[in-house]
Formats: sequence, C-alpha cells, structure tokens
Amino acid sequence: MNIEKIRQDFPLLNSKNGHKPIVYLDNACQSLRPQAVIEAVQRYYEQTPACAGRSMHRLANEVSRQVDEARQTVAKFLHANRKEEIIFTRNTTEAINLVANALDWKPGDVVLLTDKEHNSNLIPWQMLARRFGVCLKFVPSNPDNTFNLSAYQQALQGGVRLVAMGFTSNLDGVSIPAEEVVRLAHKHGAQVLLDAAQTAPHQRLDVRRLDADWVAFSGHKMLAPSGIGVLYGKYRLLEAMQPFLVGGDTVASSTYEDCQFLPPPEKFEAGLQNYAGIIGLAAAIRYLQQIGLEAIEKHEIALNQYLSEALKSVPGLQIIGPADARLRGGIVSFFIPGVDHHRIALMLDQMAGIAVRSGQHCVHSWFNARDIPGSVRASLYFYNTQEETRQLVDALIKIRKVL
Amino acid sequence: MNIEKIRQDFPLLNSKNGHKPIVYLDNACQSLRPQAVIEAVQRYYEQTPACAGRSMHRLANEVSRQVDEARQTVAKFLHANRKEEIIFTRNTTEAINLVANALDWKPGDVVLLTDKEHNSNLIPWQMLARRFGVCLKFVPSNPDNTFNLSAYQQALQGGVRLVAMGFTSNLDGVSIPAEEVVRLAHKHGAQVLLDAAQTAPHQRLDVRRLDADWVAFSGHKMLAPSGIGVLYGKYRLLEAMQPFLVGGDTVASSTYEDCQFLPPPEKFEAGLQNYAGIIGLAAAIRYLQQIGLEAIEKHEIALNQYLSEALKSVPGLQIIGPADARLRGGIVSFFIPGVDHHRIALMLDQMAGIAVRSGQHCVHSWFNARDIPGSVRASLYFYNTQEETRQLVDALIKIRKVL
Repeated sequence: MNIEKIRQDFPLLNSKNGHKPIVYLDNACQSLRPQAVIEAVQRYYEQTPACAGRSMHRLANEVSRQVDEARQTVAKFLHANRKEEIIFTRNTTEAINLVANALDWKPGDVVLLTDKEHNSNLIPWQMLARRFGVCLKFVPSNPDNTFNLSAYQQALQGGVRLVAMGFTSNLDGVSIPAEEVVRLAHKHGAQVLLDAAQTAPHQRLDVRRLDADWVAFSGHKMLAPSGIGVLYGKYRLLEAMQPFLVGGDTVASSTYEDCQFLPPPEKFEAGLQNYAGIIGLAAAIRYLQQIGLEAIEKHEIALNQYLSEALKSVPGLQIIGPADARLRGGIVSFFIPGVDHHRIALMLDQMAGIAVRSGQHCVHSWFNARDIPGSVRASLYFYNTQEETRQLVDALIKIRKVL
Repeated sequence: MNIEKIRQDFPLLNSKNGHKPIVYLDNACQSLRPQAVIEAVQRYYEQTPACAGRSMHRLANEVSRQVDEARQTVAKFLHANRKEEIIFTRNTTEAINLVANALDWKPGDVVLLTDKEHNSNLIPWQMLARRFGVCLKFVPSNPDNTFNLSAYQQALQGGVRLVAMGFTSNLDGVSIPAEEVVRLAHKHGAQVLLDAAQTAPHQRLDVRRLDADWVAFSGHKMLAPSGIGVLYGKYRLLEAMQPFLVGGDTVASSTYEDCQFLPPPEKFEAGLQNYAGIIGLAAAIRYLQQIGLEAIEKHEIALNQYLSEALKSVPGLQIIGPADARLRGGIVSFFIPGVDHHRIALMLDQMAGIAVRSGQHCVHSWFNARDIPGSVRASLYFYNTQEETRQLVDALIKIRKVL
C-alpha cells in the first residue's frame, strides 16, 4: 500500500496541486473522493445523463446497464447471494427507516439496541414505540464501552423481535461481535439489522457469513458520491416486506383502484434514482478493492495504535472506549474534562488546518446518560499518514497550554 | 435566447465535440446537464467533499454555507416566504410520500386526484387507502384530456381533505388551472399538494400567488444532478407535521426514551444529504434564470405548435390531449393504432438517433382505463430546435412506410 501514490488520487491531499494539504480526520462523517469517482460522476453527466429502466434509447439503455452492473458490484462487495438483494437508498438512515416502516409491528414487539446507537438507529425505533407500542430495550455496554455479550444473551431471553445494532460505533470505533450477535439472535427467533455505516468502508463484509437479515451502509463514507446508500436484505425477507417509498418504477402496472408491485429491488426504489451516485459507488468500490479492505483495516489500526499512544502526552485527555487501540478501528474520540470540545476542534482547524468533528456525534443518548458534554473525534482512513496523526498530537499539546 | 450558444453548454449537444449530436427528446424523464452544473458538482468533490451542519472545520463550514445558499436560491425561485419552507428530498416521489406519511389520517378522509396522475401521485395515496381507509376520488378530465373544472367543483362538494394533483401532466403536457384549483379547494376547507415535476422546469412558479400548501418537484428534470428533489411546504404546516424519515440531523437531542425534533427543514432531512445534488440544483436554477422561464415556456410552445402541425403528415398518428398545441407545454404524446409504440421508439433511436420514451409513462391507470396500449412521447426543452422536431417528423414518415 503506497500511501504517497494513493494521496495523489485525492485532489485535497495532492501536494502537487500547490496548496498545503488539509489534515482530514473527519472520515467517519464523509470520506474524501478520489479522481476515479469524480470522473465516473462527470462521465455520467457528460455522456449518458439519462434515466435507467424507463426509456429504451441508447442513453437510457447504457444507464440501465451501468446501474445493473453497479448493483452487481455492490452485491459482490458484500458477498450477497444475488444482486436483487441490494436496494439503493439515499443513506444509511433511509435504509434503516425503510426496514422500520416496512415490517408489520404489533404492540409489545421488542427491538433490542445497544446503549450507544447513532440517532439514525434509535429515532426510527422510538417512532415505532410511539406509533405501535413497540418496546425498545438496550444492551448495556461493558464499562470500557465494548459489547457485553452476557448482557446481550440475557436480553434475548425475554423475547425479541428484532436486534438492530451498530456494527461499528461512530462514537468510539468499537465493533460488536456481529457473527455471534446474529447467531444468538437467530437461535432465539429474532431477526437482525446491522448499521454498518462505519464498518463497510473499513473492513471486509461478508453478509453470507454474517447471516444478518439486513445490513445498511452509506456510500459517502467510502469514497462514493453524496446521497447514496445501500440496504442489503435477504431476498425472501425483502419479498415479504411491504414497500415503503412508493410511486413510479415500484409497480408493474396500476389502475385507479389498485397496483401490482414489482419484485425487489424495484419495489423499494421509487422514482428516478441518484444514477450518478449509484455509478460512482461502483467506481468507489472498485477503488477500495484495488487497495484491499484487509490492507485498509490493518493500516488504520496501526495508525490508531500510534495515535492513541502519542495522545498520552496530552495532559488530562481521556479516550472514549477501550484502552486497546486495536479495538477502536480508525476512530479516536476524546475529551479533556473542563475544556470545551468545540473550542479544541475550532483551534485545531484554525491553527493547524486539522479537520475533526466535535460534539455528541448523533449519539446524544449515550452522552446525556453519562453527563459528558461531548468529545472531539478524529476518524482515520487509508489515505491518512502517521505524520498527520503526529501533527494532531503536536497541535493538541500546544492547545492544551492555552486552554 | 441564442439556442446555438446554449447548445454549446451541453456536452451531448455541442457539435464542436466532433460527434453527431443526439436528438434528445426525453426531457420529461431527465434533462441534459450544462457544463455549469457539471462543474459545480466537480468543485464540491474536489474542493469541499464534506458534510454540512455537523462538523465545524473549514470544509464543513463551506458546505453548510453553500447548502444554505442553495436553499435560499430554491426559495427565491419559487417565490417562497422563507428558505425554511424548502425540504430537500431525493425526487418528487419522495416529496409526495413525505406528505402522505406525515399527515394524520382518519378513515373516510378523501383525497382528490385527477384521472391521469403519475404513479408517484397515485400509489402513495392507494397505500393510505389500504392502511387507514382513506378514500380516493378522481376528477374525470374533459374528452380532450384538459381539466374539467365543473367536475372538480362538484367533487369538492362531497368533503375533501386533500387535493393532490399533477400541475402539468407528464402524459400529455396539459397543465391544470392551478390557482383556481387551490382557491376552490381552500374555499371548501381542503388542502392542496401540487406535483410540479413537469411544471417547475418549464414555467415560472410562484407558490405565494398559487397559495398551494405543498409543491413537489425534481431537480434532474431541470438541469440539476441526479437524486435531488424538493418539497415546498407552508411553514406552519411543516411545523405541525410529523417527521417522516428520522435519524441523525433531525433531532436537537435524544435520550434512550425520547428525542426533541428540530424545526423544519431539519426535522425532515434525515442523515447525510446529497450535498453535490443540492449545490448543483442551485447552479441549475441560476442557469435557468439567466435564460428566463418565460422565454423557455414561449420557445417550447412554439416548437410544440410546429411539431404538432407537422405530425399531421404522418398517416394515422393520434396526439393524446387537446388539439391546440399551446395547451400541451413541451410534450407531444402520440400513438398509431395497430402499430407497436415501442417499435417506433426503437426505430427512431436506431435509424435517426432520436431519443424519445415509449410505454405508459407511469400513468398506467389512464391507459388501462382506456384500453390504449401505450404511446410514444417526445418531450422538449429549451435547447431543442425546430430542425430537431423536423428530423423527428421525417423519421416517423419513413418508419410509417415500413410499419
């Protein structure tokens, strides 16, 4: 993995562009985009800016072909059984809302979450609680924020309809033991939805081995264009589900009284889609596969180990999650008691050109329950270097002297 | 309006590019994109490929500023009272689904449609009928497919909760008298949603003068990137509505039990958005405004008059909708009894490089009720020329000789 060569593919990191590159450590929000993806988007708009699936002229046929190929590329990326298990959405959030709204709920149905879900995997279930009397239960994490398997096993005993959990936490980078989580859930008759927004960009996903029923993730966190996400679902489950967003392209035909829905994936993809986003997602996946997900994961963990160790020299700094950096993927989330996290982030940006995120990272529930005001989150990707993490630590040491 | 100059802005129409330009007459599906929009998208990915609203580093701040500015641009384009009345969606379909799902329905509530709605403004209401016992009623069009005002007035007498109508039909290009439709609906205590997917690209919209409660349209039919749409709603109505898609960015805070939703537009925009699409939509609107919507409308109607007249020389050809081309905007939808519409479209593409759409155009209900198999639809935009419409007619005359 030649990082210097890789960095040349990203306009903001390419030092040949004549500007001082930004130190971009906000990858858990969105990743930067390589030239190959930018060009795939541009090609769509310049050469085939048409609809897929509806018209049959040369432009439309070519878009249909490319969208179909992209669906196949995503299916292979996830090791899905067939491309019809791939639904394109706007983002992870919409994918989770789709499942929440397309299942048939009864009062008392239990949805089991962890105690550190992103709002996107919390609020949709809270809405079901309000509307249908669905009951939410939370598996408490271990004191170091890792997954508490025995608490999970206990929670399953009470009868659970759906386990909906973040595979990798955007708060601290910790992954749950997803294979084991799914195995135990199925043993107890529960279905499983995994929010893999922070997993898919960073480690190899194999939905067949995982055996999860639904997996949601976003393209824009893994080099793809903005506004594109994916819901993977087992075909027979997708077939049985009610559609959610409905309209053009979801039906085979309609009368004034009734309509016949198409099979998956069409019945879930209403109206004209984000074709440039879909085609760009395929280009992003090809780029990631060229580097290799295993190499990406290894690189991020090595960086995280270096960074976590170096951060010990910043007085008072506390990292959220386990001490062992290998358990935190590419994320280092930290706070300094008594020091405003937003102020730290602002100074990092203004003094050192370092982009991080500060706040509660859409995991308000976790922070509110612990009375922690918020944190600064540095999130790494494969194009980040040890030199950049060094710059972060140096800047924090300077900031610590004045704050 | 200098069409030759305008055509140079569109890569597929720019004869300087060295290829024979396609005759693109499928604009009711998607429009082509000008260089200014392609470059706005590219600039986003190259210079500020970050999230809006969440992080506070320089890239994120710049995206937040551009998204805010784009919302203001859309608000001004529609003559809305304030930018918070603009919700970004994936497409018109999602905007309509949002309203259908975010209102509180009671069994027996009546939704009033026309008899030629696009599936996107039909299936969402059919779903409400299934789920909540909402009752759909259809205003029959006049024999020439124009709006039947007296049938509408009669339908309103029975008590209507919502009038949901296509402002301009994608089937035949006919617009309803929207101002009058809204005025009468309000007089009878009904609210109004207008599907303006085929209106916004082609004529000046003034939501204040219209006084419609909700207006939905898509960006990709009006030069903008793929996967971007808009729901305009009166602010007090948006405020009172339940959110639909929920998750990150829709809430101010959350606990395990509950959450506090943000005011509109945030409460309706869940998760990371199609930032390139939003920024590109603003670029598209600026481009359209430079030409002027009045000039665009005038040009399309002139072309349609020429084309409709010339089509009289094609034996057996019947145009759907009124004889007067001035009532059909930029759309000519036709069929030749006994001749397969798909075959005509295929031959137009293969023999003459002319892109049209054939089929039922997602208005299956209208075709099914009339036992018409389908039609060929040529849909014009401001960059089309009289020469192109002439090529269409000439090709049809040739095709007619062999079919």
